[in-house]
Amino acid sequence: MTETRTQTRAGARTVGEVLVPEQGPAPAGPHGSPDGQEAVVILDRARVSVEPELRRAVESLPGPLRRVALHHFGWEHADGTPAAGNAGKAIRPALVLAAAGALGGQRTAAVRAAAAAELVHNFTLLHDDVMDRDTTRRHRPTAWTVFGDADAVLAGDSLQALAHRLLAEDPHPASAAASARLAGCVVELCAGQQADTAMERRAPDDITLDEVLAMAEAKTGALLGCACALGALYAGADDEDVAALDAFGREAGLAFQLIDDVIGIWGDPGRTGKPAGADLMARKKSLPVVAALASGTPAAAELAELYRLPYRDGDLERTVVAVERAGGRDWAQTQAADRMARALGHLFRAVPDPEAAEGLLSLAEFVTRRTS
Amino acid sequence: MTETRTQTRAGARTVGEVLVPEQGPAPAGPHGSPDGQEAVVILDRARVSVEPELRRAVESLPGPLRRVALHHFGWEHADGTPAAGNAGKAIRPALVLAAAGALGGQRTAAVRAAAAAELVHNFTLLHDDVMDRDTTRRHRPTAWTVFGDADAVLAGDSLQALAHRLLAEDPHPASAAASARLAGCVVELCAGQQADTAMERRAPDDITLDEVLAMAEAKTGALLGCACALGALYAGADDEDVAALDAFGREAGLAFQLIDDVIGIWGDPGRTGKPAGADLMARKKSLPVVAALASGTPAAAELAELYRLPYRDGDLERTVVAVERAGGRDWAQTQAADRMARALGHLFRAVPDPEAAEGLLSLAEFVTRRTS
Repeated sequence: MTETRTQTRAGARTVGEVLVPEQGPAPAGPHGSPDGQEAVVILDRARVSVEPELRRAVESLPGPLRRVALHHFGWEHADGTPAAGNAGKAIRPALVLAAAGALGGQRTAAVRAAAAAELVHNFTLLHDDVMDRDTTRRHRPTAWTVFGDADAVLAGDSLQALAHRLLAEDPHPASAAASARLAGCVVELCAGQQADTAMERRAPDDITLDEVLAMAEAKTGALLGCACALGALYAGADDEDVAALDAFGREAGLAFQLIDDVIGIWGDPGRTGKPAGADLMARKKSLPVVAALASGTPAAAELAELYRLPYRDGDLERTVVAVERAGGRDWAQTQAADRMARALGHLFRAVPDPEAAEGLLSLAEFVTRRTS
Repeated sequence: MTETRTQTRAGARTVGEVLVPEQGPAPAGPHGSPDGQEAVVILDRARVSVEPELRRAVESLPGPLRRVALHHFGWEHADGTPAAGNAGKAIRPALVLAAAGALGGQRTAAVRAAAAAELVHNFTLLHDDVMDRDTTRRHRPTAWTVFGDADAVLAGDSLQALAHRLLAEDPHPASAAASARLAGCVVELCAGQQADTAMERRAPDDITLDEVLAMAEAKTGALLGCACALGALYAGADDEDVAALDAFGREAGLAFQLIDDVIGIWGDPGRTGKPAGADLMARKKSLPVVAALASGTPAAAELAELYRLPYRDGDLERTVVAVERAGGRDWAQTQAADRMARALGHLFRAVPDPEAAEGLLSLAEFVTRRTS
């Protein structure tokens, strides 16, 4: 989940607004706003709540591992001097706290669970960056480029351990169930990353849409779903509501990934921090590309031809047009809208009161808020 | 911890027997035997108790990760066909169960904790093999050589998650404390591996004995100590006894490592499965080598000179002699004896009844039972 692309822009069109206007109750309430300002407030509040717990956990690590983790979270420069911090947008902690609140729980009681979800997220980022050889994250060099592969992997391993320790030491009655659920989610995240790296080695037209959707659900949807489920568990919700909150987060996560992939092809580089078409130049098998390849159209055949060879200067425009003509963009946007509608369905099943659901709604809209 | 070297040999001299005959009560009781047969029975019984739990956990993994884990545990060949299994000697599970029994707990109640310790051990093996580029483990190709680095790392990540899930789902009143302790141990194991990989890059005479002892304690002692502590927790022991059992396992682990390093230089290749002197040829900064380098003797200077260059055919004998003359072997054997004596001191503080302590004693003797 490439968070650096997420952004707020007052008055921007959002997928939620544009594509699912009638499919679910509109976000409302005294703090509701269509420009994502409420989500920004929720995220800021979550960050402030969770950061002390997160920082305490990271500070407990022994020297060299601590340095890697502090750098990864943006709290230290590579040379060990303090940095302002850029630990990400805290979407997962915010979902934990908002889900707890939505189901009548105490937000403050769920802070450790929120920190645990964020630790797991960051453990996977550290490992994924090593495997994917990604060199920047949150506009800073990735851990492995600064400290080497071994230290990055070991710091990631430690963050997973810290997540489980936080929950094991939490006297809250839901902490054991949360730890079990988070562990199951880790397995799913690993399976998603495994599928992703395996797909990299396969021919693009050999990959089915079902496979790539399942991969995206495991890699991105699973932890957003788990975060919501942890909040529900901490609110003392029953199994059905916990499952509904999980499904809400999962579907919203998939909508996020679809929109993220659309931006990877057609997005505004000034806003996304990534040149438009970067995913196509890297021959990434993103969701719109795989959908386009599966369309059986003449444009699909042309796209397959282009993807057979590495990117050459000048074929970007042709590739973009081929994905579009083969229906990749339309499919992704319709899918995103469909996923958001399903997400809202799950949410309102567990939280029928729109006012109680408002925080989660704002967050879901925020993560899928994109200029298309 | 290179388990492939551990072995039983009827009548072999053991460190326990040879070097610490008067420093602790001798192992006794109806099943006590100086040839390690009792330990073999204990290990076999532990393996039989834990394997179903372990196997169930591994079988729960999604397809590709399951294949990596089944191969790692020796339950499947690389092509996915069933294998007889060679999942290691189950020393950590045996310690968990023996510690629970020694403190008056139910061995059967601690089976999940025992499986969790073994899962953590195997998670670290998977990751360490990737970092150290080790190509064989338990006489079979390591996971990364068969499935690639990414899959080996992800399978390791999953095994850590499974360990915490086992404990989180265990209704035993000690399971949360065990999960917290195991998580703390993971951090220590990671710190040990980090120190080890960092030392690889440093000049041998720049490394202090304290550093390499601390590294060995973190890398090998920590999990043996934690396994004993988990057993104590599951027996409902108080903090003092839990700490004593942890210290027992830690010191025995360090004794193990010292003997293992002695064998890496002087061991019988027919018995160890590793050519004598292999560690010296690889210029490994093992404990006897660092002790020798720190001795300030003329032999230390010669050893430093040899270690400055990669191994050349013919300098093995000179290197072995230099380590020996500089006192590396004597130091390691005395240290091992000292650590075993300390281990026994901790054990008998918590378990004064020799009959109750017998299982743990046999295991400690077994892991340090070596032909020197």
